[in-house]
Amino acid sequence: MRVVELIRKKRDGGELSSDELRELLDAYTDGDVPDYQMAAFLMAVYFNSMTEQELGVWTDAMLHSGDVLDLSDVPGPHIDKHSTGGVGDKISLILAPLAVTAGLKVPMISGRGLGHTGGTLDKLESIPGFDVNQSVQRFKELVRDVGCGLIGQTGEIAPADKDLYALRDVTGTVECIPLIASSIMSKKLAEGIGGLVLDVKIGSGAFMKSVERGRELADSMIQIGEAMETPVRAVLTDMDQPLGLAVGNALEAAEAIDVLRGEGPSDVVDVSVALVTEMMAVARGSVDRDATRDQLVSALEDETALEVFREIVEQQGGDPAVCDRPREVLPTADDVVPFEADEAGSIRAMNAEEIGLASLDLGAGRMTKEDDIDPAVGLVFRKKRGDTVDAGEPILDMHINPGSDVESCRRRLGEAIEIGEPADSPPSLIIERRTGEGS
Amino acid sequence: MRVVELIRKKRDGGELSSDELRELLDAYTDGDVPDYQMAAFLMAVYFNSMTEQELGVWTDAMLHSGDVLDLSDVPGPHIDKHSTGGVGDKISLILAPLAVTAGLKVPMISGRGLGHTGGTLDKLESIPGFDVNQSVQRFKELVRDVGCGLIGQTGEIAPADKDLYALRDVTGTVECIPLIASSIMSKKLAEGIGGLVLDVKIGSGAFMKSVERGRELADSMIQIGEAMETPVRAVLTDMDQPLGLAVGNALEAAEAIDVLRGEGPSDVVDVSVALVTEMMAVARGSVDRDATRDQLVSALEDETALEVFREIVEQQGGDPAVCDRPREVLPTADDVVPFEADEAGSIRAMNAEEIGLASLDLGAGRMTKEDDIDPAVGLVFRKKRGDTVDAGEPILDMHINPGSDVESCRRRLGEAIEIGEPADSPPSLIIERRTGEGS
Repeated sequence: MRVVELIRKKRDGGELSSDELRELLDAYTDGDVPDYQMAAFLMAVYFNSMTEQELGVWTDAMLHSGDVLDLSDVPGPHIDKHSTGGVGDKISLILAPLAVTAGLKVPMISGRGLGHTGGTLDKLESIPGFDVNQSVQRFKELVRDVGCGLIGQTGEIAPADKDLYALRDVTGTVECIPLIASSIMSKKLAEGIGGLVLDVKIGSGAFMKSVERGRELADSMIQIGEAMETPVRAVLTDMDQPLGLAVGNALEAAEAIDVLRGEGPSDVVDVSVALVTEMMAVARGSVDRDATRDQLVSALEDETALEVFREIVEQQGGDPAVCDRPREVLPTADDVVPFEADEAGSIRAMNAEEIGLASLDLGAGRMTKEDDIDPAVGLVFRKKRGDTVDAGEPILDMHINPGSDVESCRRRLGEAIEIGEPADSPPSLIIERRTGEGS
Repeated sequence: MRVVELIRKKRDGGELSSDELRELLDAYTDGDVPDYQMAAFLMAVYFNSMTEQELGVWTDAMLHSGDVLDLSDVPGPHIDKHSTGGVGDKISLILAPLAVTAGLKVPMISGRGLGHTGGTLDKLESIPGFDVNQSVQRFKELVRDVGCGLIGQTGEIAPADKDLYALRDVTGTVECIPLIASSIMSKKLAEGIGGLVLDVKIGSGAFMKSVERGRELADSMIQIGEAMETPVRAVLTDMDQPLGLAVGNALEAAEAIDVLRGEGPSDVVDVSVALVTEMMAVARGSVDRDATRDQLVSALEDETALEVFREIVEQQGGDPAVCDRPREVLPTADDVVPFEADEAGSIRAMNAEEIGLASLDLGAGRMTKEDDIDPAVGLVFRKKRGDTVDAGEPILDMHINPGSDVESCRRRLGEAIEIGEPADSPPSLIIERRTGEGS
């Protein structure tokens, strides 16, 4: 294999064979292909993309570069959800137990927050005692007995992706649909799942700023699923403002528990229900959406889903009382300070990325992987897009601790929140569903 | 400077500022920017090219990464020629003394052959005693006193280009007009010249296979010249078959001397005259082409140019008798074996790249920089494109030594030379001239 020939082939718009792609990735993982050649290859992929065939092979090669979970001895169906990341996205905490009430098994391996986006593991760890580090054996038992495990990465999942991601980060090749899609899919497929639902966030707080780009990413991942014989569906959802009212780890955990008690904000309920509905469609091939919605909303209102969550918390070492008195059990910040509107009007926009960064100013997130986070701090909104405010009226509360940079937070919030005439047509919460040709 | 931001800017079609480009190149040369980031940047340039402004700055930064010759104390005009490389291209040996007869000074720093293309230094060194290694001081004296020096690189000319070229070679970013143009121009401008003529070879034996690509390269180099206030003109010439009749170092030196005695093949004469005419146009701003042609052809026929060449050879340590009896003074091969046509017909095509590689089989060139060459071996054509042959009639003679791989050479020649019905319209020898807007 002459690597430069493969680079030139991709550069000139050709399709690499299965053997060529596998050899390239394996040699790179083994250190036999230098970073500079892979960097040139990735930039060529940025410009010339990958064919459906290439995408499947590339993902499969990354998937098999490390450990692949075997859930074959745990009764299924094993369906997971992946979100492309946003601000205030506490859906996983609700979705996992809710899906269990619908008869699904959810082997969920989550990540941590980085930059303006939060991470499920950080939110779970705000529950006293909750341990996201479980052995593979214990994880399988949780999925079998409780129906769901909520853990961090175990062993070496897709190490090739880890190396590639680090290289993409410094070579301007992150924003590339086939590379994003294969990165996500290789890690998710390593969970040994039988199907996957993608929550592709669209808007100011999302990686994908436009519906068109979101569609491309969704379709790319659905294609990979088809190549790997794993059904994948995607829902494009709004991330042009934060999801729900809370941004910050314990604050979001509390809000998730509110939803599990039938008391949470309607946008969080709607996205959770929509995604579990798609998970059921993935498991069964089709679904009666209206009946399913009623069933799932009931499972929230009658606290069936909450009881599954309580079981998860208990089994993973957390304090189950969090389900009854979340705001007493979860850590709280020293002070709560309102952020007020400086003029009267309608809230036209809330730039979710800036709001994520504002919560980071308070200590709720990380700029680099090594940063510590403060689980208690964050933002709780009283108003959202479309609401009207008077001058001086609080839009939200800042939950702060001594380490919080309140001034920077205020400055960002001032820039993020736009007040004026009512906006014409805000984006829908559930923008659209994407499925493969066969489903 | 965040390098990844510069890569993204170029990737997204933006224009880098002068400071950004200079910092990037300087940091790379200093080892502060890793190869993988430069590789990604170069691939982004491959796809998004460089603006005229960027191209000028990039070339200037490479030019000033090393030594720049100062010819200000040697009376001019100092005009050089650069060929993009071909097979049988012995033009420099004729052009330099011929340009001197026309009142120009030619400070010519040449290269060696690599792959299927030959190099001027190798051809000069086939003359017994000829020394291409001269000090800068001696080179200046040669230009002042003889009008011309024919030497190899002195000191550190454009070291940034050297590093970049090595990286481009292994990352599939060689075939990129702005990178080729800036590479050539940075090295040529480091000679301290006042003007330059480019011989852009087009066809099967050239780097540029099509007239369109050749035009792009020519115009790109003319643009750089404008940015650097150095007039540049280009002539696109045919390299779809070897130039002249001889391919191989001593064989080509002998043919060049034939031309300087008014006895050489007309295509070599025509290209030499056309290029010197452009050099005069570069020096003077304009030129009467018909009168100049007559003047230059006279300088060949009356051996004025040969006397300048004799002076160069003498001053650089070579045996001046080569000018009188080239085929006695130059090294000769042990055997001369004909290569015959296997059928009767018209010679429709002579793939110049394959013919270059065939001469390499005999030992006339290098596949890697470290290979030795045999100055005596090579090919001498009896027939060229458009000529008719009988079956069994010799098309050319192979000049071979014990190290020659005659079988491989024969095989390649068989593939390179196409015999059949007469071809419709062979390319012109002088395809077109390109000049900047201002000239």
